[in-house]
Amino acid sequence: MEDLKDVFISPLPDSPYVKPFRFNYTQNGKQKSWDLLEVHDSVAIIVFNITRKVMVFVKQFRPAIYYNCISPEDRKSTTIDTSKYPASLGIALEMCAGIIDKDKSVEHIAQEEVLEECGYSVPLSGLHRITSYRSGVGVQGALQTFFYCEVTDAMKTEQGGGVDDELIEVVEKTIPEIEEMVNSPGPIPSPPSCLFALMWFLYNKADKFRKTYEHHCAECKKGKMVFVK
Amino acid sequence: MEDLKDVFISPLPDSPYVKPFRFNYTQNGKQKSWDLLEVHDSVAIIVFNITRKVMVFVKQFRPAIYYNCISPEDRKSTTIDTSKYPASLGIALEMCAGIIDKDKSVEHIAQEEVLEECGYSVPLSGLHRITSYRSGVGVQGALQTFFYCEVTDAMKTEQGGGVDDELIEVVEKTIPEIEEMVNSPGPIPSPPSCLFALMWFLYNKADKFRKTYEHHCAECKKGKMVFVK
Repeated sequence: MEDLKDVFISPLPDSPYVKPFRFNYTQNGKQKSWDLLEVHDSVAIIVFNITRKVMVFVKQFRPAIYYNCISPEDRKSTTIDTSKYPASLGIALEMCAGIIDKDKSVEHIAQEEVLEECGYSVPLSGLHRITSYRSGVGVQGALQTFFYCEVTDAMKTEQGGGVDDELIEVVEKTIPEIEEMVNSPGPIPSPPSCLFALMWFLYNKADKFRKTYEHHCAECKKGKMVFVK
Repeated sequence: MEDLKDVFISPLPDSPYVKPFRFNYTQNGKQKSWDLLEVHDSVAIIVFNITRKVMVFVKQFRPAIYYNCISPEDRKSTTIDTSKYPASLGIALEMCAGIIDKDKSVEHIAQEEVLEECGYSVPLSGLHRITSYRSGVGVQGALQTFFYCEVTDAMKTEQGGGVDDELIEVVEKTIPEIEEMVNSPGPIPSPPSCLFALMWFLYNKADKFRKTYEHHCAECKKGKMVFVK
């Protein structure tokens, strides 16, 4: 994943991925415009492995993150020096996710993504639709539908890692590791949708999977105290 | 804010806001490309009013969200029918935020945004830098630095509402209203960075501001039980 070379910037051709346009409007009597991108709606899925109590992440090289680590000065040169800017700068840690570019329900798309990216066969009934929100407010405002699913080791029927040219690594984190991640001073190499998913999990689900420890009360030696870790 | 007319789409001219380009690279021996946008780093700030125990949001019309509510069929027409698609579809609820387009520290930019958008004069020492993350992983990977600040009614020295042409409304929500918002089945008219901020607040700060109620134990009539609301 981190073998990177021949990095250079070129003008945008007629692109199937990035379709910019201008949105013109009159608000409260004042003419305005806003430049936008046409983007697909998407799904994102928290995958929690209950056999080993670990969260399943996907890790991949993201050109958009890598590019933003390059100084404005160095962005001007024809090619980017990969010894100065190693690929590791652009590696992101994310929830399993995918765009809705097929005529299928969001549940089916989510199911496919969990299998393709993470390797788990999840029944549709195991995918819990939590909410949906706008993936951005600036240049892209598509809807992202957010799911939670619990998986077991027995449901891991494939390798995962994406399809076609995708180079995706499946990464697992324990609950204390998730806490460490969200409490880090940053920069966290993740998008806010991943951080929302982690906080949602910690707030709503984590206690169910934390190990509890019982100790006798230090004072009376009788009463039991339960520690959660 | 919701008086909207003369909505139409036009091709992107040479835009100072949206600068798309192609990023070319060779990963693990395979030539690839990815289409990107040049975007600014930014700040986002949780503003919590401790006088009245309310979270301060900004509400504004977002063309990107509005556009994504229009059916693919209706997007093709020259002008958009605003009686079929009222402005309310594009109103977003967000944390106070702003881009870093001046040669100032992130703390100073955050301080300015809290004053301009929300009307509160916050000392720099009152802005707590929590973490930073990538604002996106697809076409834009800029860094967003995330702050928490507590304000009082006495610190409200200006009206807020943004500068120049900005039409921003300041909105307040109580802790139960925040919980209702994040527990909604959606679509929530907010970006994931706002939802992350809300979950972060609920997980790390909310208990400090919740009202507690004491009741005597129903069984023994002596022991006290504390309810948190």
